Amino acid sequence: MAAEPTEPNSQPDFPPGSAINPAIPPATVARLILYARELGRLRREGESHVSSKLLGQLLSVSDAVVRRDVSHLGSMGQRGVGYEIVPLIRQIRQTMGTNLSWKVALIGAGSLGHALLRYRGFDEQGFQLVAAFDTDPAICSRSIGGVPILPLDQLETTIATEGVTLAILAVPVDAADAVAKRLAASGVAGILNFAPRTLQKFPGVCVVNVDLASELQQLSFAVVSQK
Amino acid sequence: MAAEPTEPNSQPDFPPGSAINPAIPPATVARLILYARELGRLRREGESHVSSKLLGQLLSVSDAVVRRDVSHLGSMGQRGVGYEIVPLIRQIRQTMGTNLSWKVALIGAGSLGHALLRYRGFDEQGFQLVAAFDTDPAICSRSIGGVPILPLDQLETTIATEGVTLAILAVPVDAADAVAKRLAASGVAGILNFAPRTLQKFPGVCVVNVDLASELQQLSFAVVSQK
Repeated sequence: MAAEPTEPNSQPDFPPGSAINPAIPPATVARLILYARELGRLRREGESHVSSKLLGQLLSVSDAVVRRDVSHLGSMGQRGVGYEIVPLIRQIRQTMGTNLSWKVALIGAGSLGHALLRYRGFDEQGFQLVAAFDTDPAICSRSIGGVPILPLDQLETTIATEGVTLAILAVPVDAADAVAKRLAASGVAGILNFAPRTLQKFPGVCVVNVDLASELQQLSFAVVSQK
Repeated sequence: MAAEPTEPNSQPDFPPGSAINPAIPPATVARLILYARELGRLRREGESHVSSKLLGQLLSVSDAVVRRDVSHLGSMGQRGVGYEIVPLIRQIRQTMGTNLSWKVALIGAGSLGHALLRYRGFDEQGFQLVAAFDTDPAICSRSIGGVPILPLDQLETTIATEGVTLAILAVPVDAADAVAKRLAASGVAGILNFAPRTLQKFPGVCVVNVDLASELQQLSFAVVSQK
């Protein structure tokens, strides 16, 4: 098994594994993540408090939706004062697990893999890309965005020695299931899957899918629906 | 205003703009797109029919969820026979608008833009990348994945002359709002936004957001929640 993610700043406001987390609906999870993004920006701009109304406007949802979403985190706001930004960010990060530090491996250093290795947004959220893997000898031994590209046959040993807990899968669709199987056997706890295919299920392994063509289809649906 | 998307194979099974579309919940829309992906694979493997049970297994949902999702498309299945694959794909594509042919522009030819230009999945769904734009003179005049990179000051004229209806926004976060404003003014109907920022709203312009760091946070949430 790979190492557990480490917790740099402890002292949780409610015990991890409490009944609150699993009860949060997926749409609320998605919005909480975006609230945290906007709250971070407000904090950088020097704000200390935010109303549910303003937070809602930033995401184009009503203040009632904001209050309901935030209520999943426990008692946070104060009538007439709004939410204190720093504790709200901390509570969201703790709920999302981004108060922990996650070691991440990327598999498949093609053009999408390259772009993901250069993407700066992961770092900022506590996700540390420690290694990338590819089967092409021509690109192994290089390093992209400061991340070394290793031959795929070093996958299992690197996951074990580095304590990798999450993997980003950016391999060709036909290779996806085989690599996912190796990741699961190596004790990886979660896979962010960019291959346009539903992966086989592995016990104890969470999967989040990002299908770029499917996102564009959601957009065309939105356009034809509003006509 | 940009041109309407063209319809290569007409004869809709229900009139476009009927009340069916706007009533489809977002989670159902997302699953319908994935059903179509799996159905395409089954068809390529020579299958003509599929049961709601098998289709559910492929997406890790129950057959009841499949039947409820498909019911949004009108009357499709037959008890004991399952769904005919080809008409079901056609109906999903029509509902999603992917029976139409969409001209797409990409703005921001950095490393993510490069990856998106090389991504083959868009074409297969009727999305034609006709031009990319960037402010860096060093990469304008090149062509990536067969798509010409043009200077950003040609954005408006190219959208008009090519009849671009959708845009993919892969610019740095600070440039996102200004470019989105120009796209909206040019008559683009939809924006797939990769910038980690909630865009200003423009009437008549649909936005779908893909925030890569946010997807990884959904994964860490899934992992901490299942413990």
